[in-house]
Amino acid sequence: MRSHREELWFETKTRRAYINITRQVESVVKNSGVQEGLVLVNAMHITASVYINDDEQGLLADYDRFLERIAPHDDVYQHNETGEDNGDAHIKRQVMGREVVVAITNGRLDFGPWEQIFYGEFDGRRRKRVLVKVIGD
Amino acid sequence: MRSHREELWFETKTRRAYINITRQVESVVKNSGVQEGLVLVNAMHITASVYINDDEQGLLADYDRFLERIAPHDDVYQHNETGEDNGDAHIKRQVMGREVVVAITNGRLDFGPWEQIFYGEFDGRRRKRVLVKVIGD
Amino acid sequence: MRSHREELWFETKTRRAYINITRQVESVVKNSGVQEGLVLVNAMHITASVYINDDEQGLLADYDRFLERIAPHDDVYQHNETGEDNGDAHIKRQVMGREVVVAITNGRLDFGPWEQIFYGEFDGRRRKRVLVKVIGD
Repeated sequence: MRSHREELWFETKTRRAYINITRQVESVVKNSGVQEGLVLVNAMHITASVYINDDEQGLLADYDRFLERIAPHDDVYQHNETGEDNGDAHIKRQVMGREVVVAITNGRLDFGPWEQIFYGEFDGRRRKRVLVKVIGD
Repeated sequence: MRSHREELWFETKTRRAYINITRQVESVVKNSGVQEGLVLVNAMHITASVYINDDEQGLLADYDRFLERIAPHDDVYQHNETGEDNGDAHIKRQVMGREVVVAITNGRLDFGPWEQIFYGEFDGRRRKRVLVKVIGD
Repeated sequence: MRSHREELWFETKTRRAYINITRQVESVVKNSGVQEGLVLVNAMHITASVYINDDEQGLLADYDRFLERIAPHDDVYQHNETGEDNGDAHIKRQVMGREVVVAITNGRLDFGPWEQIFYGEFDGRRRKRVLVKVIGD
């Protein structure tokens, strides 16, 4: 069994951001040499997500509006009594998810027609990482 | 390491539907010959989910009511300005999740007493696919 | 390819509870002897979650408040007509997720600085299990 590991780094200019990382993950899969296997892509920080959906600007705005409605930044969070101001980001990340696992078939991401991998940032303006771990043959 | 891949196809008659696919996934695992490993089951479309929970009609109705409450079909979505009418479905799918990863032990799905795998459709009435990818020995 | 399987058992005293299980999962990974691979950690019951986030008491209170707001225990659920009183727990578990998949690198959980694995119980006061399945080399 082969395995391969790379990190992707991000520092967004805004508190929240949605970044298409599909090409970068494809590149890691290619570097791994794995033809058949799985790739795990996960946020290494707990106020960010990795998820799969469409790369359409209106949809990204809808996600942002939805997440702000169910967990507004300016609401009261007990977590923020520690001096943080990211209580909302910990909730938004749970709703959108920490990780995706994608099949690798014939050396490529085994995707449907519109699947794209996104990094969802909910507490940005600092350097944060995504882990890409490939296993297979 | 062995690997095996099959697709399951669906075309629901209603916009939203919840379909138990456990037997079909078990069958793919059997076809794979894998005794110890993992199976990834994911929607290949971005307005559908694969999730694990109980096969109980009241619960399915509760999920549907909950998802309509937090992301109603008839709400305003910027995504729908593209001509689509499935902005809600992209959100519902994120909440319910894209994929499940299930352990395979002794050639079988390693499940608790009530775990069942479901295909959750949020924008049906068209042909859509689920990917089942098995890896292991 | 190596594989290894253990179960963790829980019986919480309260209906809802959030328990840090990182050390127990690390111990299973060590027992497996796997140096490079993946570990799947999933609730085997359908009213409980395994998720990754911070071990901070205020945050756990925020999660609980958020989950009660979007799916209150005392709301009306069709599932409860079966005689159960855990309709809310099935929804809370979907929002927080069933499982996590974590990379194993150099024999250890490949984690960011604050990642901790939690068992989220939403219908406790009974014996319930978590599955830990390790695969790799």
